Amino acid sequence: MLLLKCCQSLTRVGPLKTQRHLRVAPTVAPCAVRLWSSSSEDRRSRESYQRAHSPSWKHVLAGLLAGTGAVLAYGLHHSKAERAATTTVQTIGKVSSVPIFSQEEVTKHRSLEDGVWVTYKGSVYDITEFVAMHPGGDKILLAAGGALEPFWALYAVHSQDHVLDILAEYKVGELSVEDQRKQQAVKSSDPYSSDPDRHPVLRINSLKPFNAEPPPEILSDNYITPSAIFFKRNHLPVPHVDPASYQLQVEGLPGGVLTLSLEDLKTQFPKHTVTATLQCAGNRRSEMNKVKQVKGLNWGIAAISNATWSGARLRDVLLAAGYGPDVARSAHHVQFEGLDKDVTGTTYGASIPLNKAVSEEGDVLLAYEMNGEDLPADHGYPVRVVVPGTVGARNVKWLGKIVVSAEESSSHWQQNDYKGFSPGTDWDTVDFKSAPAIQELPIQSAITQPADGAVVDRSAEEVTVKGYAWSGGGREVVRVDVSLDGGNTWQVAELRSSEKGQAPAPSPPPGRAWAWKLWELTAPLPPKAQELEIICKAVDNSYNMQPDSVAPIWNLRGVLSNAWHRVKVKIKEDEEEE
Amino acid sequence: MLLLKCCQSLTRVGPLKTQRHLRVAPTVAPCAVRLWSSSSEDRRSRESYQRAHSPSWKHVLAGLLAGTGAVLAYGLHHSKAERAATTTVQTIGKVSSVPIFSQEEVTKHRSLEDGVWVTYKGSVYDITEFVAMHPGGDKILLAAGGALEPFWALYAVHSQDHVLDILAEYKVGELSVEDQRKQQAVKSSDPYSSDPDRHPVLRINSLKPFNAEPPPEILSDNYITPSAIFFKRNHLPVPHVDPASYQLQVEGLPGGVLTLSLEDLKTQFPKHTVTATLQCAGNRRSEMNKVKQVKGLNWGIAAISNATWSGARLRDVLLAAGYGPDVARSAHHVQFEGLDKDVTGTTYGASIPLNKAVSEEGDVLLAYEMNGEDLPADHGYPVRVVVPGTVGARNVKWLGKIVVSAEESSSHWQQNDYKGFSPGTDWDTVDFKSAPAIQELPIQSAITQPADGAVVDRSAEEVTVKGYAWSGGGREVVRVDVSLDGGNTWQVAELRSSEKGQAPAPSPPPGRAWAWKLWELTAPLPPKAQELEIICKAVDNSYNMQPDSVAPIWNLRGVLSNAWHRVKVKIKEDEEEE
Repeated sequence: MLLLKCCQSLTRVGPLKTQRHLRVAPTVAPCAVRLWSSSSEDRRSRESYQRAHSPSWKHVLAGLLAGTGAVLAYGLHHSKAERAATTTVQTIGKVSSVPIFSQEEVTKHRSLEDGVWVTYKGSVYDITEFVAMHPGGDKILLAAGGALEPFWALYAVHSQDHVLDILAEYKVGELSVEDQRKQQAVKSSDPYSSDPDRHPVLRINSLKPFNAEPPPEILSDNYITPSAIFFKRNHLPVPHVDPASYQLQVEGLPGGVLTLSLEDLKTQFPKHTVTATLQCAGNRRSEMNKVKQVKGLNWGIAAISNATWSGARLRDVLLAAGYGPDVARSAHHVQFEGLDKDVTGTTYGASIPLNKAVSEEGDVLLAYEMNGEDLPADHGYPVRVVVPGTVGARNVKWLGKIVVSAEESSSHWQQNDYKGFSPGTDWDTVDFKSAPAIQELPIQSAITQPADGAVVDRSAEEVTVKGYAWSGGGREVVRVDVSLDGGNTWQVAELRSSEKGQAPAPSPPPGRAWAWKLWELTAPLPPKAQELEIICKAVDNSYNMQPDSVAPIWNLRGVLSNAWHRVKVKIKEDEEEE
Repeated sequence: MLLLKCCQSLTRVGPLKTQRHLRVAPTVAPCAVRLWSSSSEDRRSRESYQRAHSPSWKHVLAGLLAGTGAVLAYGLHHSKAERAATTTVQTIGKVSSVPIFSQEEVTKHRSLEDGVWVTYKGSVYDITEFVAMHPGGDKILLAAGGALEPFWALYAVHSQDHVLDILAEYKVGELSVEDQRKQQAVKSSDPYSSDPDRHPVLRINSLKPFNAEPPPEILSDNYITPSAIFFKRNHLPVPHVDPASYQLQVEGLPGGVLTLSLEDLKTQFPKHTVTATLQCAGNRRSEMNKVKQVKGLNWGIAAISNATWSGARLRDVLLAAGYGPDVARSAHHVQFEGLDKDVTGTTYGASIPLNKAVSEEGDVLLAYEMNGEDLPADHGYPVRVVVPGTVGARNVKWLGKIVVSAEESSSHWQQNDYKGFSPGTDWDTVDFKSAPAIQELPIQSAITQPADGAVVDRSAEEVTVKGYAWSGGGREVVRVDVSLDGGNTWQVAELRSSEKGQAPAPSPPPGRAWAWKLWELTAPLPPKAQELEIICKAVDNSYNMQPDSVAPIWNLRGVLSNAWHRVKVKIKEDEEEE
């Protein structure tokens, strides 16, 4: 469903690119398939074979999708692959006199200098020219000189015909029968097969890796979101970690490497509890998709949840590992590495500024409990980082390593993802170095009830609107304005910071309001309206306000979608019922 | 000019209120002047006199203006003064048989229970019923039982015919000749007469107290604003402080009261220098006035400036005065009292959260230098507080006292001013306790060039747009988007954090970006446009964005005006020149 939507949009982008490449290489005609030569000279045959199999650029672009955490062809404009579009794709079966390569020969090609070759189902591909266009960025190089299968097993997005079409273009030969047999023996199993069971109410945005959100109306039922319906945002398969042998490494401090067991974390440091809301940078991305297609999971308004987290304070652990004011002179970041990894061993990673990590008021936890129980597998069992006030992506789960360093994490997710850009920036012009990695998130709110398109009976006389509001950086939500008439007039909603019926939680210290507020407004139905355009907008205690509309904050990655939230509700007049 | 604008708006409000009061007291006719009685009975004569002189409510409302720091008739709905409107005002000269009171008698009336009497130019007024309507709030009680002259000398806004009209309504008699003579002897001189000279380029919003801003195009000429054109925002007359006898008191800490001379501040504590932008909460208020009249000085876009401040760190001074972690258990605020005071001795005051004051990263200064020189008189000589990232109002000038306390400052400016409200909140419904005092300000930007209404020649082929951008709380501006077509398309401006031609300043540590960025964009003139609607909007490193439009953030005090800034520019075609 998501992929389908993306393809639709990319099809729109397609023709432009097609034209461009046609301009650049006008001599290569759409009928290039007839130029194929059966020359026995390796190099020439490989090039000819490739040229013969150039697919439609529409297909290339449609294939430039990655399920998660990947960059869309940022290097498209760097591409040297200036070749013609063709509307027909030659199937592999029709090719004859294909060169045969040994695995040893393939393995020699594992860099841009030596060429980048890969194998897939017995065929050999020279994908050197595709590297710069790969949606997942440089990560494709990890497969260089080897088989694609284990990578594609990780990212289900590759299981599409378009992807095979693109690959076919780069075929240069076949793997020797002997080496094909060897490969069969090491084929990886589905790394997601042991992912935990999930609550059936979750709305799944991606199955592998698992990404899902609760229905909005259920989300705002609880001030503390039950763990089972807390939104899930995995970048990789859920790792299985044995708590008995679990080890956390802390590096980069004067004391050398500190290694802590789960037991150490629980017994050597005070247990600290924080109620904190986590939100995915892509929450409400679907609204940006309505303006213009963006890259990423099509989250609704519920990629946000609130839980109580307990664990050791990162500050305490860093102090135990030798952190002191001297360190701050050279180090500026704390990197986290997850134990979730792809087949090459590359782990999920992120970093936060050092001052947040060591601040007494930062409340950063190495959490081993969520809502009073061991962390669930989907939320980082046995230990995750909780960085209150900071985008979900930095709250690294299944934490394996902490590194205090001068530089930010070099991970894809820190460097080339989870950043915001101007609405005028597209994939041809984006420079990921020009924007800071998202840390604190801006003021946010949304309406969880009524749903868009709901019908209210006129006889009900009033309407109740509910939602959530939250701001990053510990900034407390101080007001939510609600409009029933598309923003002409506004009423102030009632805020709640505890479960319904419970006493209000005490006000958090300044700068440490980590948890959301739920809000509610019951107002009379406007006498003559046939439809209500309900809007909410929140204000935090730095008086930050949400922008009015989506288009001016649209960005190619679809992050930071925090415009006023709007739902339309129809009023059913009593006459209609009779 | 400002007052004129305000009056226009208030006139619009007028009739509504008039009707209301007419409904409540319909028996008191507009011709009530004829009901005046010359009875010798004090009480009856006073009441009759008052009734006879009821002015137009339009005039009352027009008079409900205060120049600065005052609340607009928040108590209007509480008023018990339900009396009739009349379109003619009887002048004092026509009244005969007026009761005579001694000063001793007047002095007995200095509370709501005993009645609130004041004298002005020999007449006695019972203003009990006006107290709740006074734009300056309760402060009017400070004059109870005495003469108005010294108060009116403080606030030039009272020098208007409307104000005299209102006062006339409350006349109950005259002061004995003997007591009038005594008053002459103590008449205060103009407390503003010794205010410093100011730069003639400043645009004055209020002369007494002095409030002025530089022309926008001059503002963005310098990264560091020259002190002479740094916006001036005074609440009271500039006090004259002798540096030799200056004493700063620090109270509320275990060490007892610490008293520091200017020399102590300069020699006992390390000198710390911070470049920080200060912005008035009312900057860009004039744009809110265009939506609907608000209360306050009609600032343009230049109630913001950037300077280099040097002084002792507040943190260091508090530590020297006995601050320790124990204090934070009971104290949460640090109050500042200025040496600027009104005739009753009430000083300007404000407070900030304790954690900001004591944080190593808060950079709060007790500044004695601005741009490398002694503080100018208008900016707090000899010592002011500089609270980087925080609204101007908390950066108390002419600092006299620091109090570490459990509670916020009880000053008018902390409690009943400088707070934000929903656009749906009006002076009838506002509850100042419901909103937090403004501390950190939200993301802001504005276009300093071209000016609204400017004309660009088509032959110029391109247009250069300049402006400033800043965010509160140490959040760094990371991007400014500029649109030439009313927000349809956006371009990214170039940011600058040093004087033109100088090397860029090093990036500030996270959360300590206290200074603004100047920005600039030169873009081709759109080929067919006859007019450009130029817009800017900024983004800080928490990815906070400015709201699109003014109306939805309008608030009755006209603070926090940070919607996209828009200017319209006409393109003059070459044909027109011939």
